Amino acid sequence: MSESNRQYLLKSRPTGMVGAEHFEFAESALPQPGEGEMLVRNLYISLDPAMRGWLNEGKSYVPPVGIGEVMRAISVARVVTSNHSGFSEGDVVSGIFGVQDYAVSDGQGVHKIDPNLAPLPRYLGTLGMPGMTAYFGLMDIGKPEPGQTVVVSGATGAVGQVVGQVAKIKGCRVVGIAGGPEKCDHATSKLGYDACIDYKNEDVKKALAAHCPKGVDIYFDNVGGAILDAVLTRLAMRARIVICGAISQYNSTEVQGPKNYMSLLVHRASMTGMVVFDYVKRYGDAAQDLATWMAEGKLASQEHVVEGLETFPDALLKLFSGENFGKLVLKVAD
Amino acid sequence: MSESNRQYLLKSRPTGMVGAEHFEFAESALPQPGEGEMLVRNLYISLDPAMRGWLNEGKSYVPPVGIGEVMRAISVARVVTSNHSGFSEGDVVSGIFGVQDYAVSDGQGVHKIDPNLAPLPRYLGTLGMPGMTAYFGLMDIGKPEPGQTVVVSGATGAVGQVVGQVAKIKGCRVVGIAGGPEKCDHATSKLGYDACIDYKNEDVKKALAAHCPKGVDIYFDNVGGAILDAVLTRLAMRARIVICGAISQYNSTEVQGPKNYMSLLVHRASMTGMVVFDYVKRYGDAAQDLATWMAEGKLASQEHVVEGLETFPDALLKLFSGENFGKLVLKVAD
Repeated sequence: MSESNRQYLLKSRPTGMVGAEHFEFAESALPQPGEGEMLVRNLYISLDPAMRGWLNEGKSYVPPVGIGEVMRAISVARVVTSNHSGFSEGDVVSGIFGVQDYAVSDGQGVHKIDPNLAPLPRYLGTLGMPGMTAYFGLMDIGKPEPGQTVVVSGATGAVGQVVGQVAKIKGCRVVGIAGGPEKCDHATSKLGYDACIDYKNEDVKKALAAHCPKGVDIYFDNVGGAILDAVLTRLAMRARIVICGAISQYNSTEVQGPKNYMSLLVHRASMTGMVVFDYVKRYGDAAQDLATWMAEGKLASQEHVVEGLETFPDALLKLFSGENFGKLVLKVAD
Repeated sequence: MSESNRQYLLKSRPTGMVGAEHFEFAESALPQPGEGEMLVRNLYISLDPAMRGWLNEGKSYVPPVGIGEVMRAISVARVVTSNHSGFSEGDVVSGIFGVQDYAVSDGQGVHKIDPNLAPLPRYLGTLGMPGMTAYFGLMDIGKPEPGQTVVVSGATGAVGQVVGQVAKIKGCRVVGIAGGPEKCDHATSKLGYDACIDYKNEDVKKALAAHCPKGVDIYFDNVGGAILDAVLTRLAMRARIVICGAISQYNSTEVQGPKNYMSLLVHRASMTGMVVFDYVKRYGDAAQDLATWMAEGKLASQEHVVEGLETFPDALLKLFSGENFGKLVLKVAD
């Protein structure tokens, strides 16, 4: 066991694109757990688009990361030593442990996971927050009905891949939007999408018209910007837009609002925001459904693992350049 | 009776601000009703923000007015001669009779009104489409609960004045947004608003913070643009935004989308479009409620009457410059 703890601290708040210059890679003494606490060793750290939002000052659904604080992150870790009655040495757990090698935790918001049921990175993707987000956003806000058309942006990303497959399971026609032929091919051949639009090489509006002849009943939006505006032009009556994210806008100094939002009026449609934490009491139900579909071979899961804590800032940037293929995870220890 | 019929025809489609140049003032022979038809004499023509939308090409909730066609308008008229079994000479009726002196109608979408119950212009305002729009938008989409905070833009306009007063009746705290001290004074002293923000002379964001300390539970949006963006920054959790109109944007060549729409996510809020025609089966219920509140003195109604069919294009422009005070109506005959 190393005697020191490497950490990424927030050095300054980005105004546009986030980069390595906004973080400090520091080393501090290994923290010691007090009474009722435990020391955990991070194994896999989740890299999420939401992290960009946590860097901004001001009111949001969680407080921003403070300057000088360890960068917030969800991760999978192993308990090294425990003074906590609920956790023992060797337990594999998930919690908000930050971008660092080790963390001390009082167990709040931490839950055990079973390393034999699924590969560990999956607990940060389809069986973690992204999976829960997909499940509740689609089911509770989208309310899919058999035969309806569901469009998903970020179609092969951590959330999108689950949305698309669950929508298929629910009997919908599912059209993805993703960047590049490789991702689109994966969406249709591996994830079961009926069609996938390559926004980097296709006219999204025209492609939506071709692939959604009856209009879009549900749009699960992970990206915002021009793609949200394109989908707004193709809504079916009483369409539901789930606002889950807006990755195209997170690093913009001026957000591009949806110019075509009056299509909501024309189509008596709605646009609703969701935050997964609201559904915490029902995570168990969702996890059971997702695990069942996985066991039945109806739900595939793609993770993109990058290695080394020190690569954190560069790895994070892959999300915003769209270089990741599936759920992006940073491996920091075996 | 004049032997000719004066009409405003659509000459060309405006791309920015609509003006007199987009209409032709024509005169044609008095039309003759056929079998099952009636001839009506327009008395009051409704001037509505929605008219601007009807001039645009393309898909909307109703087809656009065609070039060379009589400009579409809802009006109150008197039956001159009738070959229709449901209507008699002298009946006062409301329907879509267009911007002209006379119209021939087959009775579809036409209903009789009682000139003894309310002044005729009121049937185009609080007891007409604007009243229905306010009622169903607030009640069905806004879903007000006692103690909640309701914000209404266009607070003294045809729709807004009804929204604000009905929200008060439902036990809400109601904050209006209107242009100029005169309208704001009217809102608080005559319509019972708890506060009214003068967007021409106040910082709307700051004023919202002061008047909505617990955030905005319902925003009834008639204007769009910068005011929608300001309200988005002050939402309460699970807020409902009713998208009824966007008068600030109707004459823009480039619509300003709501830059702060991600506040929907942070606040788990929704933004939903509505078109009053969807509620036609329930108009009777709404009319009864509105008439009762009027009789009880709980619902005041302000109309702004401009005289003369020939003034139509100029009168219409008052809507977009905000010169109208209450429901704007064009009087074309006694």
